[in-house]
Amino acid sequence: MSNPSILILPGDGIGPEVMAEVRKVISWFGEKRDLAFDVSEDLVGGCAYDKHGTPLHDDTMAKAQEVDAVLLGAVGGPKYDNLDFSVKPERGLLRLRKEMDLFSNLRPAQCFDALADFSSLKKDVVAGLDIMIIRELTSGIYFGEPRGIINEGNERVGINTQRYTESEIARVARSAFELARKRNNKVCSMEKANVMESGILWRDVVQEIHDAEYPDVELSHMYADNGAMQLVRAPKQFDVIVTDNLFGDILSDAAAMLTGSLGMLPSASLGAPMANGRPKALYEPVHGSAPDIAGQGKANPIACILSFAMALRYSFDQGDEATRLEDAIEAVLAQGARTADLLGNEGETPISTSEMGDAILKAL
Amino acid sequence: MSNPSILILPGDGIGPEVMAEVRKVISWFGEKRDLAFDVSEDLVGGCAYDKHGTPLHDDTMAKAQEVDAVLLGAVGGPKYDNLDFSVKPERGLLRLRKEMDLFSNLRPAQCFDALADFSSLKKDVVAGLDIMIIRELTSGIYFGEPRGIINEGNERVGINTQRYTESEIARVARSAFELARKRNNKVCSMEKANVMESGILWRDVVQEIHDAEYPDVELSHMYADNGAMQLVRAPKQFDVIVTDNLFGDILSDAAAMLTGSLGMLPSASLGAPMANGRPKALYEPVHGSAPDIAGQGKANPIACILSFAMALRYSFDQGDEATRLEDAIEAVLAQGARTADLLGNEGETPISTSEMGDAILKAL
Ligand SMILES: CC(C)[C@H](C(=O)O)[C@@H](O)C(=O)O
Ligand SMILES: CC(C)[C@H](C(=O)O)[C@@H](O)C(=O)O
Repeated sequence: MSNPSILILPGDGIGPEVMAEVRKVISWFGEKRDLAFDVSEDLVGGCAYDKHGTPLHDDTMAKAQEVDAVLLGAVGGPKYDNLDFSVKPERGLLRLRKEMDLFSNLRPAQCFDALADFSSLKKDVVAGLDIMIIRELTSGIYFGEPRGIINEGNERVGINTQRYTESEIARVARSAFELARKRNNKVCSMEKANVMESGILWRDVVQEIHDAEYPDVELSHMYADNGAMQLVRAPKQFDVIVTDNLFGDILSDAAAMLTGSLGMLPSASLGAPMANGRPKALYEPVHGSAPDIAGQGKANPIACILSFAMALRYSFDQGDEATRLEDAIEAVLAQGARTADLLGNEGETPISTSEMGDAILKAL
Repeated sequence: MSNPSILILPGDGIGPEVMAEVRKVISWFGEKRDLAFDVSEDLVGGCAYDKHGTPLHDDTMAKAQEVDAVLLGAVGGPKYDNLDFSVKPERGLLRLRKEMDLFSNLRPAQCFDALADFSSLKKDVVAGLDIMIIRELTSGIYFGEPRGIINEGNERVGINTQRYTESEIARVARSAFELARKRNNKVCSMEKANVMESGILWRDVVQEIHDAEYPDVELSHMYADNGAMQLVRAPKQFDVIVTDNLFGDILSDAAAMLTGSLGMLPSASLGAPMANGRPKALYEPVHGSAPDIAGQGKANPIACILSFAMALRYSFDQGDEATRLEDAIEAVLAQGARTADLLGNEGETPISTSEMGDAILKAL
């Protein structure tokens, strides 16, 4: 049997640096844990545009469809800010999500004990925080038609369409309920059913799937604006949150920032099972391409390494190995290793991206 | 000359209790500061539905169009949760906003010194916080057509439309720049121009208005997801934020919660100038109707009283009197007066809604 395959798309900015550390970790699992992967690499985002005039070449798209998992670094940078909408770095990422049909985006917001002081929130509000936001990722206002900027009378009009079908809502709801069963069995669904009909349908379908298939899971509904408040006020009240593409974008970023350490947060984007039973999957850190520090060895590789841990768990059914990797990272943090983004005011000295990678290998 | 007119719409839940305290304050200004108002009162929300079968009677709508300012308490409650979308309490509020064309919603997020400890954020992150979110309030996905739940094939599809015209963006941008000039001269505009064409138009128009009319104001642009993060991480970096209806709903609620005291936050919704030069205007607290504590004298009337202070400032050109009222509230808080929502863990005893109103009158 051949090894499972991984396509690495480092992307732009700090993407390549953090991905170099992930590669070390992947190799370690091959050598030490008998978990070898066939790794290939390609371009996405601004660097793909530079080479091919498109942020995602069709060949790359085809490869992504074939592999067992894609690992992505980050895309974008000021160099590309004035590109036409259709070829912006982000379009590469959005095309991957859409064509791989990665409808369920798992965004854990977890506060690491060693870093609880680092949050802008009070320690008791965030210490031990462990919530999972499931964001619908392939529909809603990100992809709905009609869209565009048109002329009407003598002015421009900007249009986007929020559109959700029953089955799109049902499948992401199921993925939230499944996950809740493996956690604390609680799902909170967020929308604006008081204002948007798409929110009414969202609420109804989530409730129907619950009642028919997951009556054992505790379900609540919350308006998304209140959700934003509650995340700031008392985030530990949540276990799993399920919400649409746009609300998920904003709420998961707010939740990520609660932990105070964006450089620590991974994500998984999962689709339907492939022929081999594995889900279509893309893993990426929550942080962006951070062009201001790119190429300086300052970036924190942990979010990207934790994204690989999520790959171990969700694509390769290696939950124990994922935990091993996560524990190694906790241990390194507990020992005080800090990249520049994790420094307090206490005059600590940071270690570099590759030193952090090495420290994690050592802890493994 | 007749007195300026105010229409009071207490609404549901705690609305009537907090509005009773506002009435005391209004009377005080009439008696002691020679600022008499003609006050009338009517129904909105669930109570209007109970009486008229609609959350806003046409007569009430007509009155709102005629007065100099509307003061609204809050709408909604569990009793009305299962009403049809078209007659839900919220529709009354949304109709007022739309038909009065109140396009500029001012939502201050201010941290009161005496309450800085009350935030879930660290004191140094929020102490002295004073930002103003300007939310577009009459367009975008709240009102765009087509909308609804339709049948397609054999499933339901929920649809809403985000739609912004150039002039809708321009007028709210102007109101943000005007306000910034009276504050710290900084505007940050938030959208998702990396994903939504309506966001591209938003960014372009805000920039154009800036360059043509307000080049002296410092303008920056931020993606709304990053905006949510930055509000949690370091809110004091902002002065005025301008954003669309839906992002504004969520971001202003997150910002409100930074202060830790939702019971403290007022809002103003302003439209175009009327014949007498005053803008169409509606003032309301940011908090909801809090049905769980309604009728118990536990509600904090300060947000609603501060909304009247905003009316003094923005409708009646009485900035000094507004400041007088705000200072009285600061003084009362500094003396330790606390309604139930403002209690720490220190075993303090709360005062009632009307005791808080009385304390403010006394401080005046
Ligand atoms: C880069 C951008 C298109 C993307 C999004 O809006 O989904 C990002 O913010 C994210 O959350 O992954
Ligand atoms: C009550 C509701 C319709 C309203 C909104 O979504 O605008 C509220 O959340 C607000 O922010 O004023």
